[in-house]
Order: sequence, then C-alpha cells, then structure tokens
Amino acid sequence: MCVTQPRGFLAAGGTAGIKPSGKPDVCLIVREPAPAGAVAGFAAAFTGNAVVGAPVEIGLMQRAAALVPGGRVPRAVLINAGNSNAATGEQGVRDARACMVAAAGLLGCAEMDVVPSSTGVIGRPLPVIKIVGALPGLFAALARGERADADASRAIMTTDLVPKAVGVEVSLSGGDGGGARVVRIGAIAKGSGMIAPRLEMAFSGAARSAAPTATMLAFVTTDAPIASRTLQVMLDRAGQVSFNRVSVDNHPSCSDTAIVLASGHAGGAAIVAGTPEHAAFEAALTDVCERLAEMIVADGEGATRVFRATVIGAPSDAAAELMARQIVDSPLVKCAIHGKDPNWGRIVTAAGNAGVRFDPRQASLTIGPVEVYRAGVPITEALSDPRLVKAMGGARVELVLTVGAGPGRAWMMGCDLSKDYVSINADYTT
Amino acid sequence: MCVTQPRGFLAAGGTAGIKPSGKPDVCLIVREPAPAGAVAGFAAAFTGNAVVGAPVEIGLMQRAAALVPGGRVPRAVLINAGNSNAATGEQGVRDARACMVAAAGLLGCAEMDVVPSSTGVIGRPLPVIKIVGALPGLFAALARGERADADASRAIMTTDLVPKAVGVEVSLSGGDGGGARVVRIGAIAKGSGMIAPRLEMAFSGAARSAAPTATMLAFVTTDAPIASRTLQVMLDRAGQVSFNRVSVDNHPSCSDTAIVLASGHAGGAAIVAGTPEHAAFEAALTDVCERLAEMIVADGEGATRVFRATVIGAPSDAAAELMARQIVDSPLVKCAIHGKDPNWGRIVTAAGNAGVRFDPRQASLTIGPVEVYRAGVPITEALSDPRLVKAMGGARVELVLTVGAGPGRAWMMGCDLSKDYVSINADYTT
Repeated sequence: MCVTQPRGFLAAGGTAGIKPSGKPDVCLIVREPAPAGAVAGFAAAFTGNAVVGAPVEIGLMQRAAALVPGGRVPRAVLINAGNSNAATGEQGVRDARACMVAAAGLLGCAEMDVVPSSTGVIGRPLPVIKIVGALPGLFAALARGERADADASRAIMTTDLVPKAVGVEVSLSGGDGGGARVVRIGAIAKGSGMIAPRLEMAFSGAARSAAPTATMLAFVTTDAPIASRTLQVMLDRAGQVSFNRVSVDNHPSCSDTAIVLASGHAGGAAIVAGTPEHAAFEAALTDVCERLAEMIVADGEGATRVFRATVIGAPSDAAAELMARQIVDSPLVKCAIHGKDPNWGRIVTAAGNAGVRFDPRQASLTIGPVEVYRAGVPITEALSDPRLVKAMGGARVELVLTVGAGPGRAWMMGCDLSKDYVSINADYTT
Repeated sequence: MCVTQPRGFLAAGGTAGIKPSGKPDVCLIVREPAPAGAVAGFAAAFTGNAVVGAPVEIGLMQRAAALVPGGRVPRAVLINAGNSNAATGEQGVRDARACMVAAAGLLGCAEMDVVPSSTGVIGRPLPVIKIVGALPGLFAALARGERADADASRAIMTTDLVPKAVGVEVSLSGGDGGGARVVRIGAIAKGSGMIAPRLEMAFSGAARSAAPTATMLAFVTTDAPIASRTLQVMLDRAGQVSFNRVSVDNHPSCSDTAIVLASGHAGGAAIVAGTPEHAAFEAALTDVCERLAEMIVADGEGATRVFRATVIGAPSDAAAELMARQIVDSPLVKCAIHGKDPNWGRIVTAAGNAGVRFDPRQASLTIGPVEVYRAGVPITEALSDPRLVKAMGGARVELVLTVGAGPGRAWMMGCDLSKDYVSINADYTT
C-alpha cells in the first residue's frame, strides 16, 4: 500500500502508448475534496536546473497559487513517463495544458487544479492525443488498495528496474483533544538515470552548488490535515536531507519534482508549527523521503551497490556537503567501489577537490569498521584486514572522512559506476 | 625531438623497478648552466587540490625561491612514475628530499636545485632505494637527441597508451639587434586518468570552481633567455587556456604539475614583457601547452574520441566556463558521445546545472555543422541530417551552445566514457 493508503486518495496506472515498449506510462492520483471544515494542503519542490520542462513551469505557478493565504489545493496529479515535455518551447506548455484541461473536465475541477508531471526523452513533442485518449480509462480504473498503488508505481517508471513505494502510519499525540490520532503517509517515486536532485525549496533557499541532478519524481500523499504553507516548510527541510543527498550521475534533470498532497481526511484540527504533532509528522515525512531517496540511488542505472560518504570536522555543514558530493560523484571513486577496491587515495583526493582547504595531516578515513588513513598517513596493515574486504563487498559501503576539528558535517549517498551504466546510456535516444 | 631540442638541455629515461610491469619509470631532465651573461628562468603551476603530494609541497617552495629577484633557477627535474608520493605524510617529504640530495650530489648542485615530480599510486612509501640506485645509470645515459627524448617521454607514462611530446622552433623578431632570432621550445607530458587539471597559477589567481582535476605532468624546456617572473606570468596565462581546459574524469589529482625551464642558451638579451618578441614567445608557449593538453585528453583512460563544448553568449567568461565544464563532465553526455548519439537534451540540461541562470528560449545548440536546437525548440529534421551522423562519428565532436546575448565565452575539451574506463579503474590498486 502506498499513495492510496491515506484516506481521500484514489490512483490508477495505465498505458497510453508513449513508451515504445508498450509498458504502462500514465498515472493519475486524485485527491477527494476535503470534508467540511477539514484542511487540505499542497507542497512541491522542483529542479534547480536553468532548463526546466513545461510541467515544472506550470507546477511553479500552481505552488505559488497554493502558498498564498487561502490558496488553491490541487485535486489531481497527472503523470506520464516516456516523454519529459522538456525543451519543447511554448508548444510544450500548450500541450501540458491540453492534458490538464481534459483531466479537469473529467474530474469536474478547474484546469489549474490538475498538476502535470512528465519524465522521459527530452525535446520531443508530448503525444497529447495518446494521453488524452487514455484518460477515460484511467478515470474508470481509479481505485484505492494494493492493486491501484502497484499500477500507479509501475506507470511512472523509466529505466527503473523496480517500482518504488512507501506507506506508513504515524501516531500523533499532543493534539487539541489531548489523545493520540493516527494519520497515514504514502508515496511513490521513480529515478534511475539523470539522478542528482538539487531541488530548490520554496522557502528555505537551499544553496545551489555547481553540481547538478537527474529526473527523480516523488509523489507523497497524506490524510493528515495540514495547510499548504506548513506542509511546504516541512518538505523544504525533508527534501534537503533526503532527495538532495543522493546522486547517481551528478546530472540534475530538467524535471526533478517532489510533490506532497494532504487530504485532511484523517480529521481533527490542522497540524501547526511548534507542536509535538508537527514534529512527529515532519519526522515521519522525512523518513518517507529518505527511504524513497535510498530506493532511487540503489536502483541507479547500472548500480550494483550504494555507498555513503560522511564528512565530519569541516568548517561548516555546507563545506562538508561539497566534499561529500565530490566523493560520491568522482568516477574514479565510483569505479573503485564497483571493483570492491579500497582505493582510499581517490576518496581523500576527491574531497580535496571541493574547493575547501583542509590539512591532510589532520585527516582520517574509515571504510566500514576499518581505519585506513590516519593523520595524513596510510595504515598499511589495514589493507590486509578481512573486515575491509567484507566492508567493500557489501551492498552498502560506509565511508567516514574526518578532515579536521570543525563543526561541519554532511553525508551524500551514491552508487557505483559499472559497464552497464555505459551500455544503458551510450544508446538511449537512437 | 622534444625536451632536448632547445640548447642547454640533456635528458634520460630509465627503469628503477617501481612499476610492477618493469617498464621505464624514472626520468631526468638537466639544464646546463647558462652561459656568462645569459638569463635562465623557472616557472611552475601545481594542482589546486587541498591534498598535495610531497613533490608539490617542495615544488611550491622552489617556485617561491625562483620568483624573488635574483632567485634560484633549478638545474634538474627528477621524475618518477608508479608512485605519486602523495598522502605519505612527513615521510613523503623526507623521501623526496633523499632523492634530491642524491641527484644533486651527482650533478654538483644544491639539493634545492633538483625539482622532484612523482605520479602513480597514492599513499605508498616512495621506494627511495630503487630511485637512488637508478640515478648513476640515468646520469650516464644523459644525452640530447631523439633517443634521449623518446626515453624521457616514455619513462613518465602511467596508464597512457602513447608518449606525448612536442617540439617547435620560434622565430622572434623585434629584439635589440633589430634582426630575427630563433629559439626552441620542447615538451613532454603524461596524463590519462585523474585528469581535470585545475592548476593554481602563481600570479593570476585562477578562479577555483568546485570541479576537480587529475594527474597530468608537463615539462617544458626552452633555450630562450627569459627570467623566472616573466616566464611565470606567461605560464599562468598559457596554462589557463590549455591544461585547465581539459577533463577526462573531473577528478583533479594531488600531483598535477606543469614546469617550464629556460636555459638562455639561445643567447641574446632577455625577453621582456611588452615587446613583440614576448608576444611571439608567449603565443608559441601557449600553442605547445594546448597541443599537450589535447594529447592528454585524447589519450584519456578508455577514450575513443574527444569533444569540445564551446559556450557563447553567457553573462561572463567565468559563467561560460562553468557551463562548458558541466557539459564535458556529465557522464550522460560522455556516454552519448561514446554511442555517437546526438542526444542534445543532455547537453542543454548539463549546461543548465552550472548554477548560471539563462533563458532556454534564447538558447541554441550546434553539433558539428548542424543546428539541432534553436531558440528553445528542437529542430526535428536535423536528426535525419547525414552531416549530423558524420559529426557524431568523428574523432573530435564540436558542440557550440549559445545561451543568450552576453559577452561571456569559453570552451572545455573532454572525452567519451566507455566500458574500458570502468575496466581500467575498477581494479587499479588491488
């Protein structure tokens, strides 16, 4: 169970014929109107790429419309895979709107209450007729339950090998009534290639570095009653420590998108900032986003294992992040991880390329439980430690680099670079 | 002919037994003392990595000693391949100095007049005994001519497939006497992996971005009479538009080094700034550095072709460089180049990840002679243009991205990403 686990949501997946493979490629998530007096909400974060797809241009307007006091909360998200509707000029915006209009007609809402989202090949006209033609079937199939969730999670895949879904129940205490209430969070996501999300948040103004991202899409539903502005602040923080902490290929896509819809169907008073309920909900949302992000990097194109680079002792968290990012994006480090090779020299020198000065004589590196480099000097005997072989061969390799005594700390998660990555990407459009 | 083509230089290459393969791994370049009244000079640029090898630490001191008025000009460069003497702590500095002392004794000069340079595996103690043991043979083999040049260029190779050497004669006019005089420039270089030089210049304060580089070594000799400070200013500029414009894997090494030695043996008055002779010499030096840089990227690990990304119309040259760098370092673009796939969407979105805002509706992209994207819209018919197929299949692919009407312009050269790159790097130390 995932996106339809929270009350007030229906979903369906179907096949419009966009993908040459004939696999499912359209997905609809519908939010039922909030009960009288209940609060619904919408939050979104989009790619920081200067080149954005038409759906992102429209989504930015929809987010702006949601964040004004008493703003609109969209009723549905219409997603297609196989065509990103990016680098398609004004025609791309017209095409996305044509699909929104058709879906809004069937749903009985305004055009701007349907959020479009697209992933796939860049620069090809969106096949509007195929998508619009598939809508009646999608609406007829709308349902809740495992089958609907599975259909939805499969229809948004591109080069993903496995569908990605999460569903949790959260017990919140400290509400008005004093007793606990239970709310649900569900989510689906896709990733695989062009993955290095650098989502720009609405309020928190996440620092952009020169590094880029890839197409990840994540759609989160919850039946908790939360207004858009409150939800957006939570997503800004949660996205920063989840989606923005993974990289498959250091190439942020023009379509990266994370969306949260809150239906309010769980009932009760709206969750507001500064309460224990708010903290508990944000922790659960962050956990859901972290789990999706890990699923995305683990299913990175050609990946056989993931690794996490944690940098501690840097002058600041931002400096630590730049260093961790250099480690997970270095092709030399990624190849070493693929070859199960404890080539720590590549790891230390990758961090040295972040533009942050540090004294190598104060630096130490641990791979799994084994310290391989201490105070700027290699620990030669570590290379024959059987625990090092075991750590390098695991499904997840943990690297911890200490660069000094500063307060800065950050981690990034990446995956190895294999020949399959080259195969998948050397012949994608042709 | 290369490093011994200029008068006043001798060279030799030999085998110290550092490389497990038994291939040549030590090289010596010796400058003969300048004739009475002649001017000699030394210039150097080293990696911007925060982690530097022991030879770079020593080289920075030698450069500082050369740049003071009346400063010392080193007599020799002693290079070894197979061990980078980096991440070796204080022991690394002691080991490098032991080799310098031994070479200085044989040459009859001061220890600090021997410049050390090392490339190879990181974090292993330098095998001093092997290097010192090879020195008598190297000194006995010192010679000028093609054989000496070939030996020298081969002894500095690591994963390079071909030796890299350049030699030119430059006719300078506008000197004191009014007549033309001929000087010579020779050079050897190595590269292949960990290549994305971001050399830090002595005077010009090259901007460092978050992006890193690899181990390239370049040794340039000339018999022109040029003082160290004049030579350093030229190298600062020449290196910026040559070595710092290529990237194999976006991982600057801890050992990247470019060194120029001027013997003064061509005679005549010293070349000084602001003269036609100075301009002619700098142009020739820049050309030599550009040719070495192209040889390095063309011989990048696993590379089958090179490509150049030129960005024009950016707000500034620095912004254009950031965008060009994102293009040549994107694994997705590199795989597309490998697959001869004109996947222009990846190129445009890579540029969009540089942290520079631009309007995609003002952007255009040309691959070879074919415009594939104009004013934010794909030119669909371009994909069936036979000239596009030809351009993508060539040994060098030219990409020109226009992002607006600004004055900024820059280019970067990269190479494709192949399965061989993964093979070479997934199992390097073990």
